Amino acid sequence: MVRVKLVGAGGYGGIGLVELLHRHAEAKLVALVDVQGVGQPLSEMWPYLQGYCDMTIVAPDSKEATTTPADVTFFATPDGAGQAAAPAEIAAGRRVIDYSGDFRFNSTDLYAEYARRINRDPVHQAPELLKQSVYGLTELHRSEIKQARVVGNPGCFAVSCICGLAPAVAHRLIDLTGIVCDCKTGVSGAGKKPAPGFHYPERYDNASAYRLTGHQHVMEIERALSDLAGRTVSVTFTPQVIPMVRGILSTLYGRLAQGATQERVIEAYRETYRGEAFIKVKAATEPVGTSDVRGSNRAIITIACDERTGTFRAISHIDNLVKGQAGSALQNMNVMFGLPETLGLEQPPAHP
Amino acid sequence: MVRVKLVGAGGYGGIGLVELLHRHAEAKLVALVDVQGVGQPLSEMWPYLQGYCDMTIVAPDSKEATTTPADVTFFATPDGAGQAAAPAEIAAGRRVIDYSGDFRFNSTDLYAEYARRINRDPVHQAPELLKQSVYGLTELHRSEIKQARVVGNPGCFAVSCICGLAPAVAHRLIDLTGIVCDCKTGVSGAGKKPAPGFHYPERYDNASAYRLTGHQHVMEIERALSDLAGRTVSVTFTPQVIPMVRGILSTLYGRLAQGATQERVIEAYRETYRGEAFIKVKAATEPVGTSDVRGSNRAIITIACDERTGTFRAISHIDNLVKGQAGSALQNMNVMFGLPETLGLEQPPAHP
Amino acid sequence: MVRVKLVGAGGYGGIGLVELLHRHAEAKLVALVDVQGVGQPLSEMWPYLQGYCDMTIVAPDSKEATTTPADVTFFATPDGAGQAAAPAEIAAGRRVIDYSGDFRFNSTDLYAEYARRINRDPVHQAPELLKQSVYGLTELHRSEIKQARVVGNPGCFAVSCICGLAPAVAHRLIDLTGIVCDCKTGVSGAGKKPAPGFHYPERYDNASAYRLTGHQHVMEIERALSDLAGRTVSVTFTPQVIPMVRGILSTLYGRLAQGATQERVIEAYRETYRGEAFIKVKAATEPVGTSDVRGSNRAIITIACDERTGTFRAISHIDNLVKGQAGSALQNMNVMFGLPETLGLEQPPAHP
Amino acid sequence: MVRVKLVGAGGYGGIGLVELLHRHAEAKLVALVDVQGVGQPLSEMWPYLQGYCDMTIVAPDSKEATTTPADVTFFATPDGAGQAAAPAEIAAGRRVIDYSGDFRFNSTDLYAEYARRINRDPVHQAPELLKQSVYGLTELHRSEIKQARVVGNPGCFAVSCICGLAPAVAHRLIDLTGIVCDCKTGVSGAGKKPAPGFHYPERYDNASAYRLTGHQHVMEIERALSDLAGRTVSVTFTPQVIPMVRGILSTLYGRLAQGATQERVIEAYRETYRGEAFIKVKAATEPVGTSDVRGSNRAIITIACDERTGTFRAISHIDNLVKGQAGSALQNMNVMFGLPETLGLEQPPAHP
Repeated sequence: MVRVKLVGAGGYGGIGLVELLHRHAEAKLVALVDVQGVGQPLSEMWPYLQGYCDMTIVAPDSKEATTTPADVTFFATPDGAGQAAAPAEIAAGRRVIDYSGDFRFNSTDLYAEYARRINRDPVHQAPELLKQSVYGLTELHRSEIKQARVVGNPGCFAVSCICGLAPAVAHRLIDLTGIVCDCKTGVSGAGKKPAPGFHYPERYDNASAYRLTGHQHVMEIERALSDLAGRTVSVTFTPQVIPMVRGILSTLYGRLAQGATQERVIEAYRETYRGEAFIKVKAATEPVGTSDVRGSNRAIITIACDERTGTFRAISHIDNLVKGQAGSALQNMNVMFGLPETLGLEQPPAHP
Repeated sequence: MVRVKLVGAGGYGGIGLVELLHRHAEAKLVALVDVQGVGQPLSEMWPYLQGYCDMTIVAPDSKEATTTPADVTFFATPDGAGQAAAPAEIAAGRRVIDYSGDFRFNSTDLYAEYARRINRDPVHQAPELLKQSVYGLTELHRSEIKQARVVGNPGCFAVSCICGLAPAVAHRLIDLTGIVCDCKTGVSGAGKKPAPGFHYPERYDNASAYRLTGHQHVMEIERALSDLAGRTVSVTFTPQVIPMVRGILSTLYGRLAQGATQERVIEAYRETYRGEAFIKVKAATEPVGTSDVRGSNRAIITIACDERTGTFRAISHIDNLVKGQAGSALQNMNVMFGLPETLGLEQPPAHP
Repeated sequence: MVRVKLVGAGGYGGIGLVELLHRHAEAKLVALVDVQGVGQPLSEMWPYLQGYCDMTIVAPDSKEATTTPADVTFFATPDGAGQAAAPAEIAAGRRVIDYSGDFRFNSTDLYAEYARRINRDPVHQAPELLKQSVYGLTELHRSEIKQARVVGNPGCFAVSCICGLAPAVAHRLIDLTGIVCDCKTGVSGAGKKPAPGFHYPERYDNASAYRLTGHQHVMEIERALSDLAGRTVSVTFTPQVIPMVRGILSTLYGRLAQGATQERVIEAYRETYRGEAFIKVKAATEPVGTSDVRGSNRAIITIACDERTGTFRAISHIDNLVKGQAGSALQNMNVMFGLPETLGLEQPPAHP
Repeated sequence: MVRVKLVGAGGYGGIGLVELLHRHAEAKLVALVDVQGVGQPLSEMWPYLQGYCDMTIVAPDSKEATTTPADVTFFATPDGAGQAAAPAEIAAGRRVIDYSGDFRFNSTDLYAEYARRINRDPVHQAPELLKQSVYGLTELHRSEIKQARVVGNPGCFAVSCICGLAPAVAHRLIDLTGIVCDCKTGVSGAGKKPAPGFHYPERYDNASAYRLTGHQHVMEIERALSDLAGRTVSVTFTPQVIPMVRGILSTLYGRLAQGATQERVIEAYRETYRGEAFIKVKAATEPVGTSDVRGSNRAIITIACDERTGTFRAISHIDNLVKGQAGSALQNMNVMFGLPETLGLEQPPAHP
């Protein structure tokens, strides 16, 4: 039984993990940590959890948080929290899975560049751990994740884009320049904190692009694709919010390489993802919507190249809160502890 | 292991049961029956189920449908289908749980009255079974359900209203005249069939009352309350559709009986539902929304009497597709087969 | 040409009036006042207004705000602002229309009671004006509004309930005890300020009742009905938020008086509202939804008594931001200045 | 006063024009034609129009439809209807504006290619009129529209893409190969007819791409861009439906030509659209959402080139039912009849 400490329990990323662990036969929550709601049951902050998870929230520096024996600590926290606290977790013998950008780049230089983009201190607070950390896109880094002490869980946009582009880049089915990621996310991706742009009356019949002059996720995508290509890959990334709650629909474009056809592309994707429990590849003729992955850890990638214009096109569908966040993190935990990768993640979504 | 045959697999009521059974440790689907999609996997009709339920749909009169050994048959079908087919199921040794109004009234007279209201033939096709049938509101009829061969699962509005009114009526905390059920339902209650009133552009920012001159559900509510009261009880029932998908919010009004106070009412509710796994009673000061029960088999009843005006008020929150339909049906199956009542129904909802 | 000064320009109530005045041939905005966005064009705060209303917002105590000649000042402001500032407006020769509760009760005692309910200072700051003020439900107080110097515009819930109950109360078609107002509002009724309960992910598939232990609107409704009845009338009021943006659906219940029938009730309503431009009366058999009034100043009242149970039932549909707020205020302005009552309010809604 | 005959009055395109004409000072409806609802007032089919437009619907071949004097006939009808009926309209002295693809290509060859794509008879029924017809994107063809007897109103996707790409193509700021149109539409674009994909429960939290193997709109876009470029231009077009009702968000990509920068691109756009009443150009730093154009005839084009990757990017926002359909058609009518181009189109949207 894997004992789980969860830091940042009260955010969407935290409660998403609580939900998944509820059905996980080989893991159990032993500590819920947050800076809000300390001393209350999690189910007071989130009444829908009453009877499902009534464990009390403890403060990060409380005795319960620091001394409860645990095997793994999830940081479902914003940038900065994980890197400050991870060394103590490691010292206490706990492995770490961090949701933020703190451990997505196992290089202080890359981290510094990332930190500057998001207006944070470029000096990482745990550089030694950073170097040992593994990027947690399970399908690409499974064997390293297995051994990792610290996993930097990928961002939700990055999951959708990297899964949707990796085979094309790895097999050079597309040119490495001119790649476009047109991404539409549901509102839950912005977290639980109210803001004018997510106020129901302002968002309900409204689609908009944002951060058009730079977005932190592009760096993560470029880094993963560059690793696969063996050379620097740049992409154009357009984040857009649409009036839905769960789901990311990423439409990915590139120029088909010489000789690449819809048929060859789809074969390469099927081959790459053969055996993957959570990635399905579909042809352009099969109807798919984000509701087909809603609530599940599944990614569906539709291959729909436009041979007439020589354009590669893949459409990647995920649930931003599951495969894009808590589900992916749990998948990593399963890998790290030698459990079946699908444990706790087998449930189909509730439809409609 | 309870072997389940599901008739009407492709509707919302059918796939709802498929989802729940996926996590049920002591029951398994052995036959999926429908008149649409015959010969296809259920997951072709509903791609979100790919990999979760790829069993092939068979026709009602097919050999597979009629001869596959099963312990229980669920009729997730419209009025009329269950009563026509139930005798053969019983003859084949299967117990029956029917979602429609076919077996909600174990009297041919009451059935005839109900059938007239919905413009159907008032002559029941299986009068002998009808007489043996049990009304499947588990919390009120648990011991009979345990023995039942045929259970008439309650309607979604009825579940919310009866659970919300039963203690008040049984303990005479309210007058038996003047009861009002003001019910708001999500659109999924109307099923999967497209219609102008449920077309996305027509429904998205639109609330409306309907069938104001008569609704079949009122009879079911009145019957249950009359049984509890030991005399005829009439209620005024207002069905309303609001732009949400899952959930019923029923606001229930009556006149407080002499001596009945908010405090006494809430005590009576807590006492009545003590030990019930799926019914929670809350005071007016605790915030509740339908999203607190969304995806779960839970009913939350908020007691909020207005002593100033002498008015009883209870607000009943359920997920119309779970406690209002498939979840309630599964709860009944658990009772019928001596299983823990919560099996397959323990999962918290995905939030948000 | 009526010159309009608008205080509280940047809230939903303010921009709603700006939109309506844009199409009003006999009135024009001369000053936009707010405490936020001072010095900016209103269209910087609300880009959708660019080219439609680029007037600069001025501070309440600025020279522009205080000295610009105007005929009427609208206070689209929260409780408290209007009563503090109204005397100066009156002194400057401007008539006043206030959206808040500040001038809805032309008695210091009633105001004090109201203020206590909303946790405000019970001492009104402009008691002399209060006494002269007129309650702005146009259809009930047209002749006084015509002469009024200060109009207290009604609350959105109150508009829907009073319009829906007035003829029944005035003609004693219902008992004066046991009246229930079951009200569902769209989220815009809460204004533009983000809050957890109106955060898109928390609200999108969620209906909930709130403030069950007291709500300021009930007092306004009771006061209007008591005036009509000539004796004290109490009502039970249940405010509920549903996942829509514009619209209120109020379902109103009472006990039919001796001899009152659906037919007589509907006749009385038609008679009462004959000649009213903005109130339509419909029978239970005619389908109506809030989208039928969305964007318009119309109220549709469906009469659907349940003679079987002796219950009066009326369903009142309005757009909370038009007939429930800015439209109603503009209607009052038209009356006050002797203009055709429908000026600026003739536009059908955009559908869908 | 321009007398308007409207064929296809009962669809979203028809009622959209009815709404706009209601506020148009120089045009009036003289005949409402449809094949559904004949003999009823339009307001019986659409109760929200009661009191606004109670004119009776007449059949296409009725005496009223054929003989009522009119100056212009709008065909708010599907492909095929306009070309069959237009000759008689022209013979009767009426000018024609058609919403469908019937008159978007003034060449029988191009039409035949288009018709094949949508599985229709490639032989146009009014080839003579076709040759005289003008493509109704006002901003590009104003002077020809002025003289036109038949105008083929553009498709909604085409409006958004062509307005967003025209200056870049005309001024060769982008390469003419590799252009991508990633388009997201609200559900109203599919019309009023219910279908499974637009059923509220199936669409509410669901984004999906469709017709990935070919879509009629691409041809219209390519034709317009080719005309501007003076050579054949091909584009990759991805239509996507998102859970909103009104609005199109088209994100347009290309490769920046040698020397083209964000600054130069934005200048070229501002220069091109200087003086246009309905097109606004914005920089990447200015927040825009489709709600900023909702209900209005405005197109907002955000220029957000990614110089780092050498990528041109423009984001085009329109209301698919106004600038994308009825508003654009009315704008053309104004041009054809020498009226101010903005007549009937000056109203800001209702917000929120």
